[in-house]
Amino acid sequence: MTTLVNHQWRLAARPAGAVKRSDWSFTEEPVTAPADGQVLVKTLYLSLDPAMRGWMNEGKSYVPPVGIGEVMRAGAIGEVIESKDPAFRQGDFVNGVTGVQEYAVATAKQLVRVDPKLAPLPVYLSTLGMPGFTAYFGLLDVGKPEAGQTVVVSGAAGAVGAVVGQIARIKGCRAIGIAGGADKCRYLTQELGFDVAIDYKSADVKAALRDACPNGIDVYFDNVGGDILDIALTRLARHARIVICGAISQYNNTTPVRGPANYLSLLVNRASMTGMVVFDYAKRYPEATRELAAWMAAGKLKSREHVVEGLATFPETLQMLFSGANQGKLVLKVASE
Amino acid sequence: MTTLVNHQWRLAARPAGAVKRSDWSFTEEPVTAPADGQVLVKTLYLSLDPAMRGWMNEGKSYVPPVGIGEVMRAGAIGEVIESKDPAFRQGDFVNGVTGVQEYAVATAKQLVRVDPKLAPLPVYLSTLGMPGFTAYFGLLDVGKPEAGQTVVVSGAAGAVGAVVGQIARIKGCRAIGIAGGADKCRYLTQELGFDVAIDYKSADVKAALRDACPNGIDVYFDNVGGDILDIALTRLARHARIVICGAISQYNNTTPVRGPANYLSLLVNRASMTGMVVFDYAKRYPEATRELAAWMAAGKLKSREHVVEGLATFPETLQMLFSGANQGKLVLKVASE
Repeated sequence: MTTLVNHQWRLAARPAGAVKRSDWSFTEEPVTAPADGQVLVKTLYLSLDPAMRGWMNEGKSYVPPVGIGEVMRAGAIGEVIESKDPAFRQGDFVNGVTGVQEYAVATAKQLVRVDPKLAPLPVYLSTLGMPGFTAYFGLLDVGKPEAGQTVVVSGAAGAVGAVVGQIARIKGCRAIGIAGGADKCRYLTQELGFDVAIDYKSADVKAALRDACPNGIDVYFDNVGGDILDIALTRLARHARIVICGAISQYNNTTPVRGPANYLSLLVNRASMTGMVVFDYAKRYPEATRELAAWMAAGKLKSREHVVEGLATFPETLQMLFSGANQGKLVLKVASE
Repeated sequence: MTTLVNHQWRLAARPAGAVKRSDWSFTEEPVTAPADGQVLVKTLYLSLDPAMRGWMNEGKSYVPPVGIGEVMRAGAIGEVIESKDPAFRQGDFVNGVTGVQEYAVATAKQLVRVDPKLAPLPVYLSTLGMPGFTAYFGLLDVGKPEAGQTVVVSGAAGAVGAVVGQIARIKGCRAIGIAGGADKCRYLTQELGFDVAIDYKSADVKAALRDACPNGIDVYFDNVGGDILDIALTRLARHARIVICGAISQYNNTTPVRGPANYLSLLVNRASMTGMVVFDYAKRYPEATRELAAWMAAGKLKSREHVVEGLATFPETLQMLFSGANQGKLVLKVASE
């Protein structure tokens, strides 16, 4: 076997506020051969997610921070090019958290096989991957929507939000999406079947939510935090459930996170606000995959990926999440299948 | 029957910030006779509660605001002096929301009979009344503590907090109370059996909570909001439950309520924050009364009332809640039994 060269994006510094190019280093090293029980994977598609911003910070969170000098953590779809574990064979396609690099050596238990005949590979980073699972368990297990209720989701055109709204519709709820820009809003109502889309960049969100939710919000699935969370709190129905999935508006803060000033609405409305992390549901991923895939096959659930090419573009492409430039799940294509 | 004179405290203006004497008017009028189905009650003890501050504000809440010119809303224990309803007889002692006045005409269904042989009358405004029920349902139904877990309560020397901590102990939990001043803290640990009391006026609450809760907080019962809520959020155990019962630190704000900046700890710890209003449990008050009274009879649950005399002192006495001057449930004695 010829020696392969691996290129990698490593964390060079902990960012203050928005991530700068100098917070990264681009490195090159030879690919190491897999030992017994290990698998060598060639990266095809990388998942770019808002949560990555949090992993770059020091301090306790639901996963340890990425260390300075380490390859940046990322989920990826890859192809097995050499296997020293009987669980995988050369040519298998796999999903795993193998990092922002062209090649990775992983143990078999860090990888899950995916089927390219069932769905295009990028979908396994999207609706049939972490974002889809996050939407599925966050909405159904934490939000507990009932048919006829009103579900509001922020970041609605994002990878998680789009699935939340569509599952809400499948479950017989009204789905209201909040997103930035007319294109995204059109996409929500015309392609994904949301009942109402609110463009937070041009609309008075408070008035629009009042109009869209005359009986209040039963489930608010929050991906953004900040002002929009605070507005949603003013429109809760009795016994509303808020699912805290993320807070992208706050991730680049250099000042402290702004807390929801209207949190006492939880008291007035006997409502709850609950945080969720998808990894807790790992044992149930197969259940979610089956149901999500069945909805996709039945045409009830659409998945959209925004694919950008080239590992070299990683820093700039990641930035699209924070400017809202992506439409659908942001995926970085590293190599062809 | 001679014409009785009724004195009343009415809301004269909506307060901005702390309540001023000029926000009240003291009025006098003849007592009206009860019609059929009504009962005339002589007020003996008035319940003074932090929630009263919220009732003075304009705007939607869990109960309508008290109108300008109306008698201030308050729970009270009184004696029936004339009854036109077969459910009550002269000489009965009753509990009802009959307002800050010497006499009230109420319908029978607004009143509940209380037994002065079972407990001193002020206890029915305290541990065997709304504060006790709030603690009981808020801790057990919303907080769901399990034996061996750590329960933290703020406003711990108050009418609700003292019961929360004692029920936590009864259920086999560690009870940590946060209160203002050495006297209150001594009361919590030496008389009520709390495991730890933290004096927020003199201690570094963050460091003290870290020491007191090495495995994190499983249930945080919040009566105060503000800084202490924010600190508690930094110490949550995985799957912690925060019960939002009140936010006395924020009630006199003239600026917007300060939201909990550390709310994303809910996400990191898969934790929840849930509001509760005791009135939702009205059907289960008899259950709570039975269990609370049994614990009191067994010496496992102590009740302390801070009784101030004289209807004329109402504005100044109410203020004690916000300066923290009361020790135990604040009760205004209006007349002798």
